[in-house]
Amino acid sequence: MIATQYKGDKTFSVIEKEIEAPAKGEVRIKVAYVGVCGTDVHIYHGMMDKRVNIPETIGHEMSGTIDAIGEGVSGFKVGDKIVVRPLDDRKVKSSDKGFNHICEELKFIGIDSPGAMQQYWNVPAFTLHKLKEETDLKLAALIEPLSVAVHDVRMSELKAGETAVVLGGGPIGLLVALVAKEKGAQVIVSEVNETRISKAKELGLDTVNPIKTDLVDYVKSKTDDKRADVVFEVAGVQPALDIMTEVAGIRGRIVMVAIHGQKKEVDLFKFFWKELKLIGARVYEKEDYEQAIRLITANELPFNEMITDVQPLKNIQTVFENIDKNPEGLKVLMDCQS
Amino acid sequence: MIATQYKGDKTFSVIEKEIEAPAKGEVRIKVAYVGVCGTDVHIYHGMMDKRVNIPETIGHEMSGTIDAIGEGVSGFKVGDKIVVRPLDDRKVKSSDKGFNHICEELKFIGIDSPGAMQQYWNVPAFTLHKLKEETDLKLAALIEPLSVAVHDVRMSELKAGETAVVLGGGPIGLLVALVAKEKGAQVIVSEVNETRISKAKELGLDTVNPIKTDLVDYVKSKTDDKRADVVFEVAGVQPALDIMTEVAGIRGRIVMVAIHGQKKEVDLFKFFWKELKLIGARVYEKEDYEQAIRLITANELPFNEMITDVQPLKNIQTVFENIDKNPEGLKVLMDCQS
Repeated sequence: MIATQYKGDKTFSVIEKEIEAPAKGEVRIKVAYVGVCGTDVHIYHGMMDKRVNIPETIGHEMSGTIDAIGEGVSGFKVGDKIVVRPLDDRKVKSSDKGFNHICEELKFIGIDSPGAMQQYWNVPAFTLHKLKEETDLKLAALIEPLSVAVHDVRMSELKAGETAVVLGGGPIGLLVALVAKEKGAQVIVSEVNETRISKAKELGLDTVNPIKTDLVDYVKSKTDDKRADVVFEVAGVQPALDIMTEVAGIRGRIVMVAIHGQKKEVDLFKFFWKELKLIGARVYEKEDYEQAIRLITANELPFNEMITDVQPLKNIQTVFENIDKNPEGLKVLMDCQS
Repeated sequence: MIATQYKGDKTFSVIEKEIEAPAKGEVRIKVAYVGVCGTDVHIYHGMMDKRVNIPETIGHEMSGTIDAIGEGVSGFKVGDKIVVRPLDDRKVKSSDKGFNHICEELKFIGIDSPGAMQQYWNVPAFTLHKLKEETDLKLAALIEPLSVAVHDVRMSELKAGETAVVLGGGPIGLLVALVAKEKGAQVIVSEVNETRISKAKELGLDTVNPIKTDLVDYVKSKTDDKRADVVFEVAGVQPALDIMTEVAGIRGRIVMVAIHGQKKEVDLFKFFWKELKLIGARVYEKEDYEQAIRLITANELPFNEMITDVQPLKNIQTVFENIDKNPEGLKVLMDCQS
């Protein structure tokens, strides 16, 4: 089999290695597709070298089929289409209050332990979600990021007829927008990059460039002055933090999806004045995966258009180099069997 | 009758004026007691001179009895004990989504229009809440700030058995702590001022000085490492903002009670990582007033100990001067009939 390894210094290697038998409680997956996540790019840039056990196979947005079943695993058979929910919560404690998906000792598979960017991948069976026979494995590689979006929307308690503003039109922002729209909400995407704006419009999303159009005025005009019921902060930049408290209406809910590495300035007065809520949302829970699987299997949203490139696994180095050159692309998949 | 007027420049005058008949839809109140609020002190310091229509009678934490009833007012009779909920929401719009208590055009009676620091006060009847005959009018002057605390606790969705940390042991912080404790929560107050710490302990509250004791360690030791389920930020200072995201446990709710006039640094990463919620809470709704009235009438909490001084209305100037000299005091009431 071939496997890829992140070696530090913006370098991946492609190596030949033996296929391993699955350990007790594990399965071996024949990996079909792996999506490149922003976190993978972050790793490639060396930003997570302290956390990643170099040399390491990374990757966690994947689809595949069961190739072999380890001792003690039931409920799966060879050939089953599956996705992995890459959360290892085996060290959960009572102080985690049952929120296993964000437990203090959570290990993220594909960052903290070997990931999917290889032909075969051994994982604990508790991470598996079974797909239907008809589920498209290429689209299924979107289930992990789609679950993030499903979780974000669920945490927002968005209802049909409400208005959601999504700040940032990258892959997660657009998935959040699609999920919110599917809920029956009016959705407005705010994005500054013209390539991404075009893409968002192709996906059927009402999209505004806040540098050219006053976003608050635009949202007011679309809501009888009510402004947004829900704001998703997916941009991760100060201007998004500045506008999130402006564009939210009375009792608006702001979901913090972006990862802000440093402390940032926030208009807490507006939280007080309009009784806003800020809702932190991280990864997903089991039910979010199940909902994402339903959406991908139904395939009624423009998921195909989200996939902007598919490359053979052996091209991993150029895949990451090209993402750096063309940061406006949406989702790049690696085909692990070609 | 005598009335007081804020004249700007840290000065109040006490004037003699005619008692006025209540206008249509209004009642005349014989004011019993008026509490001095932090906002009143803010006005005295000249911080709200742009908003207050100088010279103006201020004051909004009050109790009294109905003295005369205007045309078209029903449901009240002369002698009824009442308190005023000082929110004039007559300019509510549909874009306020039914949240009248924080509507965009809200006028706060006692700031934006004449207040209670006078012998007789004419107010719209829709602001009134009737008290029971047995309700103590001195304690009843605490109903307005107590309603703030009741609202804050309600917005936090605090449940019995949870742990709440209150950052800041001023009057509102202590009322929040008492209401949270009455709900059946474990309550820990964090306060740096030793006089206030003593007062909080007198009220039966578990109180920590975070300069002397590591607050996070203390809360962990009291919660089997779970940390706080709910944090009330009532201090309004950067160290409180820094610690609120540390002391909150997984999925903790942080209620923003303090008024932060400037943008402040917030650890948004912690919101993401622990899926924290920030909940803005401002003034109160009708049900909060009703709950506060029940609590004051039942008088099972140490409300009397919250009142640190009662002065005749004519002493208003020295009352405000003394608050400046002794900022650790809790609630000062003015007796409007002595």
